[in-house]
Amino acid sequence: MGDEAGNTSRLAVALLHYPVYDKNRRVVATAVTNLDIHDIARTAKTFGLARYYVVTPLLEQQELSRRIVRHWREGWGAEYNPKRKAALELVTVVTTLDEAVNDLERELGGPVRTVATGAGGALRSVSYAAMTGLLARGDENYLLLLGTGWGLTSEIMDRADLILAPITGSGAYNHLAVRSAAAIIVDRLLGNRH
Amino acid sequence: MGDEAGNTSRLAVALLHYPVYDKNRRVVATAVTNLDIHDIARTAKTFGLARYYVVTPLLEQQELSRRIVRHWREGWGAEYNPKRKAALELVTVVTTLDEAVNDLERELGGPVRTVATGAGGALRSVSYAAMTGLLARGDENYLLLLGTGWGLTSEIMDRADLILAPITGSGAYNHLAVRSAAAIIVDRLLGNRH
Repeated sequence: MGDEAGNTSRLAVALLHYPVYDKNRRVVATAVTNLDIHDIARTAKTFGLARYYVVTPLLEQQELSRRIVRHWREGWGAEYNPKRKAALELVTVVTTLDEAVNDLERELGGPVRTVATGAGGALRSVSYAAMTGLLARGDENYLLLLGTGWGLTSEIMDRADLILAPITGSGAYNHLAVRSAAAIIVDRLLGNRH
Repeated sequence: MGDEAGNTSRLAVALLHYPVYDKNRRVVATAVTNLDIHDIARTAKTFGLARYYVVTPLLEQQELSRRIVRHWREGWGAEYNPKRKAALELVTVVTTLDEAVNDLERELGGPVRTVATGAGGALRSVSYAAMTGLLARGDENYLLLLGTGWGLTSEIMDRADLILAPITGSGAYNHLAVRSAAAIIVDRLLGNRH
Protein backbone atom coordinates (compact mmCIF):
# COMPACT_ATOMS: atom_id res chain seq x y z
CA MET A 1 0.00 0.00 0.00
CA GLY A 2 2.39 2.67 1.28
CA ASP A 3 4.38 2.87 -1.94
CA GLU A 4 1.38 3.72 -4.10
CA ALA A 5 1.23 7.33 -5.23
CA GLY A 6 -0.44 9.71 -2.76
CA ASN A 7 -4.07 9.38 -1.76
CA THR A 8 -3.50 7.24 1.30
CA SER A 9 -6.99 6.76 2.55
CA ARG A 10 -8.03 7.24 6.13
CA LEU A 11 -10.72 4.60 5.68
CA ALA A 12 -10.27 0.83 5.96
CA VAL A 13 -12.68 -2.08 6.16
CA ALA A 14 -12.91 -5.17 8.39
CA LEU A 15 -15.02 -8.24 7.64
CA LEU A 16 -15.92 -9.95 10.91
CA HIS A 17 -16.51 -13.70 10.96
CA TYR A 18 -16.90 -13.49 14.75
CA PRO A 19 -18.79 -12.42 16.76
CA VAL A 20 -21.81 -12.48 14.44
CA TYR A 21 -25.33 -13.87 14.64
CA ASP A 22 -26.59 -16.93 12.85
CA LYS A 23 -30.15 -17.29 11.53
CA ASN A 24 -31.44 -17.98 15.05
CA ARG A 25 -29.52 -15.11 16.66
CA ARG A 26 -26.94 -17.36 18.24
CA VAL A 27 -23.43 -15.93 18.36
CA VAL A 28 -21.20 -17.91 15.99
CA ALA A 29 -17.98 -17.85 14.00
CA THR A 30 -18.78 -18.15 10.29
CA ALA A 31 -16.59 -19.71 7.63
CA VAL A 32 -14.41 -17.53 5.46
CA THR A 33 -15.46 -17.58 1.80
CA ASN A 34 -13.21 -17.11 -1.17
CA LEU A 35 -15.46 -14.55 -2.84
CA ASP A 36 -15.80 -12.39 0.28
CA ILE A 37 -12.03 -12.02 0.23
CA HIS A 38 -11.84 -11.29 -3.50
CA ASP A 39 -14.87 -9.07 -3.97
CA ILE A 40 -14.26 -6.81 -1.00
CA ALA A 41 -10.53 -6.58 -1.81
CA ARG A 42 -11.41 -5.42 -5.34
CA THR A 43 -13.87 -2.87 -3.94
CA ALA A 44 -11.27 -1.68 -1.41
CA LYS A 45 -8.64 -1.27 -4.14
CA THR A 46 -11.01 0.50 -6.54
CA PHE A 47 -11.97 3.07 -3.91
CA GLY A 48 -8.47 3.49 -2.46
CA LEU A 49 -9.06 2.08 1.02
CA ALA A 50 -6.06 1.79 3.31
CA ARG A 51 -6.57 -1.87 4.19
CA TYR A 52 -9.01 -4.78 4.30
CA TYR A 53 -8.98 -6.92 7.46
CA VAL A 54 -10.35 -10.44 7.39
CA VAL A 55 -11.18 -11.15 11.06
CA THR A 56 -11.55 -14.73 12.27
CA PRO A 57 -10.49 -16.36 15.54
CA LEU A 58 -10.36 -19.84 13.96
CA LEU A 59 -6.82 -20.82 13.12
CA GLU A 60 -7.67 -23.10 10.22
CA GLN A 61 -9.84 -20.34 8.73
CA GLN A 62 -6.96 -17.91 9.08
CA GLU A 63 -4.69 -20.37 7.32
CA LEU A 64 -7.23 -20.86 4.51
CA SER A 65 -7.55 -17.09 4.09
CA ARG A 66 -3.79 -16.62 4.00
CA ARG A 67 -3.48 -19.41 1.44
CA ILE A 68 -6.01 -17.71 -0.85
CA VAL A 69 -4.25 -14.38 -0.50
CA ARG A 70 -0.81 -15.92 -1.04
CA HIS A 71 -1.94 -17.71 -4.17
CA TRP A 72 -2.92 -14.44 -5.85
CA ARG A 73 -0.07 -12.40 -4.42
CA GLU A 74 2.81 -14.77 -5.02
CA GLY A 75 1.61 -17.95 -6.70
CA TRP A 76 0.83 -18.37 -10.40
CA GLY A 77 -2.27 -16.27 -9.69
CA ALA A 78 -0.11 -13.17 -9.39
CA GLU A 79 1.19 -13.63 -12.91
CA TYR A 80 -2.13 -14.79 -14.34
CA ASN A 81 -3.98 -11.78 -12.98
CA PRO A 82 -1.86 -8.84 -11.74
CA LYS A 83 -4.99 -6.78 -11.05
CA ARG A 84 -6.11 -9.35 -8.54
CA LYS A 85 -2.67 -9.28 -6.94
CA ALA A 86 -2.95 -5.51 -6.45
CA ALA A 87 -6.31 -5.92 -4.71
CA LEU A 88 -5.24 -8.79 -2.48
CA GLU A 89 -2.20 -6.85 -1.29
CA LEU A 90 -4.66 -4.88 0.83
CA VAL A 91 -5.78 -7.97 2.77
CA THR A 92 -4.54 -8.65 6.31
CA VAL A 93 -5.83 -11.66 8.22
CA VAL A 94 -6.24 -11.07 11.98
CA THR A 95 -7.67 -12.89 14.98
CA THR A 96 -9.77 -10.15 16.56
CA LEU A 97 -11.24 -6.74 15.85
CA ASP A 98 -8.86 -5.24 18.43
CA GLU A 99 -5.93 -6.63 16.49
CA ALA A 100 -7.27 -5.00 13.30
CA VAL A 101 -7.68 -1.64 15.07
CA ASN A 102 -4.17 -1.82 16.55
CA ASP A 103 -2.62 -2.74 13.21
CA LEU A 104 -4.42 0.09 11.41
CA GLU A 105 -3.43 2.59 14.09
CA ARG A 106 0.18 1.59 13.57
CA GLU A 107 -0.14 1.82 9.79
CA LEU A 108 -1.91 5.20 9.75
CA GLY A 109 -0.01 6.63 12.70
CA GLY A 110 -2.98 7.69 14.80
CA PRO A 111 -6.18 6.63 16.53
CA VAL A 112 -8.86 4.77 14.58
CA ARG A 113 -12.61 5.11 15.14
CA THR A 114 -14.78 2.08 14.41
CA VAL A 115 -17.91 2.42 12.27
CA ALA A 116 -20.38 -0.46 12.56
CA THR A 117 -22.75 -1.32 9.73
CA GLY A 118 -25.87 -3.45 9.59
CA ALA A 119 -29.34 -3.81 8.18
CA GLY A 120 -31.06 -3.09 11.47
CA GLY A 121 -30.53 0.57 12.08
CA ALA A 122 -29.95 2.18 15.47
CA LEU A 123 -31.08 5.28 17.31
CA ARG A 124 -27.63 6.80 17.15
CA SER A 125 -26.96 5.95 13.51
CA VAL A 126 -25.02 8.37 11.34
CA SER A 127 -26.23 9.29 7.84
CA TYR A 128 -24.09 8.73 4.74
CA ALA A 129 -23.92 12.49 4.25
CA ALA A 130 -22.61 13.01 7.78
CA MET A 131 -20.07 10.19 7.46
CA THR A 132 -18.90 11.52 4.07
CA GLY A 133 -18.39 14.87 5.77
CA LEU A 134 -16.33 13.32 8.56
CA LEU A 135 -14.13 11.55 6.01
CA ALA A 136 -13.73 14.71 3.94
CA ARG A 137 -12.30 16.56 6.96
CA GLY A 138 -9.35 14.20 6.66
CA ASP A 139 -8.23 14.47 10.27
CA GLU A 140 -9.36 11.10 11.63
CA ASN A 141 -9.05 7.45 10.67
CA TYR A 142 -12.03 5.12 10.39
CA LEU A 143 -12.51 1.37 10.21
CA LEU A 144 -15.80 0.14 8.69
CA LEU A 145 -17.04 -3.04 10.38
CA LEU A 146 -18.99 -5.49 8.21
CA GLY A 147 -20.64 -8.60 9.62
CA THR A 148 -20.96 -11.98 7.94
CA GLY A 149 -23.80 -14.42 8.76
CA TRP A 150 -26.86 -12.59 10.08
CA GLY A 151 -24.83 -9.54 11.08
CA LEU A 152 -22.67 -8.03 13.82
CA THR A 153 -23.69 -8.77 17.41
CA SER A 154 -25.24 -6.03 19.54
CA GLU A 155 -22.08 -6.12 21.66
CA ILE A 156 -20.01 -5.03 18.62
CA MET A 157 -22.62 -2.43 17.64
CA ASP A 158 -22.56 -1.00 21.19
CA ARG A 159 -18.78 -0.88 21.32
CA ALA A 160 -18.43 0.86 17.94
CA ASP A 161 -17.67 4.58 17.93
CA LEU A 162 -20.24 5.17 15.19
CA ILE A 163 -23.05 3.22 13.56
CA LEU A 164 -23.76 3.86 9.90
CA ALA A 165 -27.38 4.08 8.75
CA PRO A 166 -28.70 0.92 7.08
CA ILE A 167 -28.96 0.71 3.30
CA THR A 168 -32.60 0.93 2.36
CA GLY A 169 -34.03 0.08 -1.00
CA SER A 170 -37.55 0.49 -2.30
CA GLY A 171 -39.40 -1.32 0.45
CA ALA A 172 -39.10 -3.48 3.51
CA TYR A 173 -36.81 -6.10 1.93
CA ASN A 174 -33.27 -5.49 3.09
CA HIS A 175 -31.12 -8.58 2.68
CA LEU A 176 -28.09 -7.66 0.66
CA ALA A 177 -25.06 -9.93 0.46
CA VAL A 178 -22.24 -8.51 2.59
CA ARG A 179 -20.19 -8.20 -0.61
CA SER A 180 -22.90 -6.01 -2.14
CA ALA A 181 -23.40 -3.97 1.03
CA ALA A 182 -19.64 -3.33 1.21
CA ALA A 183 -19.63 -2.05 -2.38
CA ILE A 184 -22.61 0.25 -1.84
CA ILE A 185 -21.31 1.66 1.47
CA VAL A 186 -17.83 2.41 0.15
CA ASP A 187 -19.26 3.95 -3.03
CA ARG A 188 -21.61 6.15 -1.01
CA LEU A 189 -18.71 7.37 1.12
CA LEU A 190 -15.98 7.72 -1.50
CA GLY A 191 -17.40 7.27 -5.02
CA ASN A 192 -17.39 9.89 -7.77
CA ARG A 193 -20.99 10.09 -8.85
CA HIS A 194 -20.90 11.73 -12.25
CA MET B 1 -43.46 -10.20 -8.35
CA GLY B 2 -46.80 -8.89 -9.63
CA ASP B 3 -48.63 -9.48 -6.36
CA GLU B 4 -46.29 -7.35 -4.29
CA ALA B 5 -47.74 -4.00 -3.24
CA GLY B 6 -47.32 -1.20 -5.79
CA ASN B 7 -43.95 0.16 -6.81
CA THR B 8 -43.52 -2.01 -9.89
CA SER B 9 -40.18 -0.88 -11.16
CA ARG B 10 -39.47 0.03 -14.74
CA LEU B 11 -35.89 -1.14 -14.32
CA ALA B 12 -34.63 -4.71 -14.65
CA VAL B 13 -31.18 -6.25 -14.89
CA ALA B 14 -29.62 -8.90 -17.15
CA LEU B 15 -26.36 -10.73 -16.44
CA LEU B 16 -24.81 -11.83 -19.72
CA HIS B 17 -22.62 -14.93 -19.83
CA TYR B 18 -22.37 -14.53 -23.60
CA PRO B 19 -21.17 -12.71 -25.60
CA VAL B 20 -18.42 -11.44 -23.28
CA TYR B 21 -14.66 -11.14 -23.49
CA ASP B 22 -12.17 -13.34 -21.73
CA LYS B 23 -8.80 -12.10 -20.42
CA ASN B 24 -7.35 -12.13 -23.95
CA ARG B 25 -10.36 -10.35 -25.52
CA ARG B 26 -11.68 -13.49 -27.12
CA VAL B 27 -15.47 -13.76 -27.23
CA VAL B 28 -16.57 -16.56 -24.91
CA ALA B 29 -19.48 -17.95 -22.92
CA THR B 30 -18.62 -17.91 -19.20
CA ALA B 31 -19.90 -20.33 -16.58
CA VAL B 32 -22.81 -19.36 -14.38
CA THR B 33 -21.83 -18.97 -10.72
CA ASN B 34 -24.05 -19.60 -7.76
CA LEU B 35 -23.16 -16.32 -6.05
CA ASP B 36 -23.82 -14.20 -9.14
CA ILE B 37 -27.35 -15.53 -9.09
CA HIS B 38 -27.84 -14.99 -5.35
CA ASP B 39 -26.11 -11.68 -4.83
CA ILE B 40 -27.66 -9.89 -7.78
CA ALA B 41 -31.11 -11.34 -6.98
CA ARG B 42 -30.83 -9.95 -3.43
CA THR B 43 -29.74 -6.55 -4.79
CA ALA B 44 -32.61 -6.61 -7.31
CA LYS B 45 -35.13 -7.44 -4.58
CA THR B 46 -33.78 -4.84 -2.15
CA PHE B 47 -34.08 -2.07 -4.74
CA GLY B 48 -37.39 -3.24 -6.20
CA LEU B 49 -36.23 -4.18 -9.69
CA ALA B 50 -38.81 -5.74 -12.00
CA ARG B 51 -36.75 -8.80 -12.93
CA TYR B 52 -33.27 -10.32 -13.07
CA TYR B 53 -32.37 -12.23 -16.24
CA VAL B 54 -29.58 -14.77 -16.23
CA VAL B 55 -28.54 -15.00 -19.89
CA THR B 56 -26.64 -18.02 -21.16
CA PRO B 57 -26.86 -19.92 -24.46
CA LEU B 58 -25.44 -23.10 -22.91
CA LEU B 59 -28.19 -25.58 -22.12
CA GLU B 60 -26.42 -27.27 -19.22
CA GLN B 61 -25.68 -23.86 -17.69
CA GLN B 62 -29.34 -22.95 -18.02
CA GLU B 63 -30.27 -26.18 -16.31
CA LEU B 64 -27.77 -25.54 -13.50
CA SER B 65 -29.15 -22.02 -13.03
CA ARG B 66 -32.73 -23.25 -12.93
CA ARG B 67 -31.76 -25.93 -10.42
CA ILE B 68 -30.24 -23.31 -8.09
CA VAL B 69 -33.29 -21.10 -8.40
CA ARG B 70 -35.70 -24.00 -7.90
CA HIS B 71 -33.87 -25.15 -4.78
CA TRP B 72 -34.44 -21.80 -3.06
CA ARG B 73 -37.91 -21.22 -4.49
CA GLU B 74 -39.41 -24.64 -3.93
CA GLY B 75 -36.93 -26.97 -2.26
CA TRP B 76 -36.05 -27.04 1.42
CA GLY B 77 -34.19 -23.79 0.75
CA ALA B 78 -37.53 -21.97 0.48
CA GLU B 79 -38.47 -22.99 3.98
CA TYR B 80 -34.98 -22.58 5.40
CA ASN B 81 -34.65 -19.04 4.10
CA PRO B 82 -37.86 -17.34 2.88
CA LYS B 83 -35.99 -14.08 2.24
CA ARG B 84 -33.83 -15.88 -0.29
CA LYS B 85 -36.94 -17.30 -1.92
CA ALA B 86 -38.36 -13.79 -2.34
CA ALA B 87 -35.18 -12.66 -4.07
CA LEU B 88 -34.87 -15.67 -6.35
CA GLU B 89 -38.45 -15.28 -7.53
CA LEU B 90 -37.12 -12.38 -9.61
CA VAL B 91 -34.76 -14.62 -11.58
CA THR B 92 -35.57 -15.75 -15.13
CA VAL B 93 -33.09 -17.85 -17.08
CA VAL B 94 -33.01 -17.11 -20.83
CA THR B 95 -30.93 -18.06 -23.86
CA THR B 96 -30.27 -14.66 -25.41
CA LEU B 97 -30.45 -10.96 -24.64
CA ASP B 98 -33.27 -10.63 -27.21
CA GLU B 99 -35.27 -13.21 -25.28
CA ALA B 100 -34.79 -11.18 -22.08
CA VAL B 101 -35.91 -7.97 -23.79
CA ASN B 102 -38.98 -9.66 -25.29
CA ASP B 103 -39.94 -11.21 -21.96
CA LEU B 104 -39.58 -7.91 -20.13
CA GLU B 105 -41.59 -6.05 -22.78
CA ARG B 106 -44.37 -8.57 -22.28
CA GLU B 107 -44.16 -8.25 -18.50
CA LEU B 108 -44.07 -4.45 -18.40
CA GLY B 109 -46.41 -3.98 -21.35
CA GLY B 110 -44.23 -1.68 -23.42
CA PRO B 111 -40.90 -1.20 -25.16
CA VAL B 112 -37.67 -1.69 -23.23
CA ARG B 113 -34.46 0.27 -23.76
CA THR B 114 -31.17 -1.50 -23.07
CA VAL B 115 -28.50 0.17 -20.92
CA ALA B 116 -25.02 -1.33 -21.25
CA THR B 117 -22.50 -1.08 -18.42
CA GLY B 118 -18.75 -1.60 -18.30
CA ALA B 119 -15.49 -0.42 -16.88
CA GLY B 120 -14.24 1.03 -20.16
CA GLY B 121 -16.36 4.09 -20.72
CA ALA B 122 -17.60 5.31 -24.09
CA LEU B 123 -17.98 8.60 -25.89
CA ARG B 124 -21.74 8.44 -25.73
CA SER B 125 -21.95 7.35 -22.09
CA VAL B 126 -24.76 8.64 -19.90
CA SER B 127 -24.06 9.95 -16.39
CA TYR B 128 -25.73 8.47 -13.30
CA ALA B 129 -27.54 11.76 -12.75
CA ALA B 130 -28.96 11.68 -16.28
CA MET B 131 -29.98 8.04 -15.99
CA THR B 132 -31.61 8.66 -12.60
CA GLY B 133 -33.57 11.46 -14.25
CA LEU B 134 -34.73 9.20 -17.08
CA LEU B 135 -35.93 6.61 -14.55
CA ALA B 136 -37.67 9.24 -12.44
CA ARG B 137 -39.77 10.32 -15.44
CA GLY B 138 -41.36 6.87 -15.17
CA ASP B 139 -42.50 6.68 -18.79
CA GLU B 140 -40.01 4.16 -20.19
CA ASN B 141 -38.67 0.74 -19.27
CA TYR B 142 -34.96 -0.04 -19.02
CA LEU B 143 -32.87 -3.20 -18.88
CA LEU B 144 -29.39 -2.86 -17.38
CA LEU B 145 -26.86 -5.14 -19.10
CA LEU B 146 -24.03 -6.50 -16.97
CA GLY B 147 -21.17 -8.55 -18.41
CA THR B 148 -19.39 -11.46 -16.79
CA GLY B 149 -15.76 -12.38 -17.62
CA TRP B 150 -13.84 -9.35 -18.89
CA GLY B 151 -17.01 -7.51 -19.87
CA LEU B 152 -19.62 -7.08 -22.60
CA THR B 153 -18.40 -7.24 -26.19
CA SER B 154 -18.24 -4.08 -28.28
CA GLU B 155 -21.03 -5.53 -30.41
CA ILE B 156 -23.35 -5.52 -27.36
CA MET B 157 -22.17 -2.05 -26.34
CA ASP B 158 -22.86 -0.73 -29.87
CA ARG B 159 -26.32 -2.29 -30.02
CA ALA B 160 -27.38 -0.94 -26.61
CA ASP B 161 -29.72 2.05 -26.54
CA LEU B 162 -27.65 3.70 -23.81
CA ILE B 163 -24.26 3.16 -22.20
CA LEU B 164 -23.89 4.02 -18.53
CA ALA B 165 -20.73 5.79 -17.35
CA PRO B 166 -18.14 3.52 -15.73
CA ILE B 167 -17.81 3.41 -11.95
CA THR B 168 -14.63 5.21 -10.99
CA GLY B 169 -12.96 5.05 -7.63
CA SER B 170 -9.99 6.93 -6.33
CA GLY B 171 -7.53 6.15 -9.07
CA ALA B 172 -6.85 4.14 -12.18
CA TYR B 173 -7.75 0.78 -10.63
CA ASN B 174 -11.19 -0.24 -11.79
CA HIS B 175 -11.76 -3.96 -11.43
CA LEU B 176 -14.88 -4.50 -9.41
CA ALA B 177 -16.59 -7.87 -9.25
CA VAL B 178 -19.76 -7.84 -11.38
CA ARG B 179 -21.72 -8.50 -8.17
CA SER B 180 -20.25 -5.36 -6.60
CA ALA B 181 -20.73 -3.28 -9.75
CA ALA B 182 -24.38 -4.36 -9.93
CA ALA B 183 -24.93 -3.25 -6.33
CA ILE B 184 -23.29 0.13 -6.82
CA ILE B 185 -25.08 0.85 -10.11
CA VAL B 186 -28.53 -0.02 -8.80
CA ASP B 187 -27.92 1.96 -5.60
CA ARG B 188 -26.79 4.99 -7.59
CA LEU B 189 -29.94 4.82 -9.70
CA LEU B 190 -32.54 3.91 -7.09
CA GLY B 191 -31.04 4.09 -3.56
CA ASN B 192 -32.21 6.40 -0.79
CA ARG B 193 -29.07 8.16 0.30
CA HIS B 194 -29.85 9.54 3.72
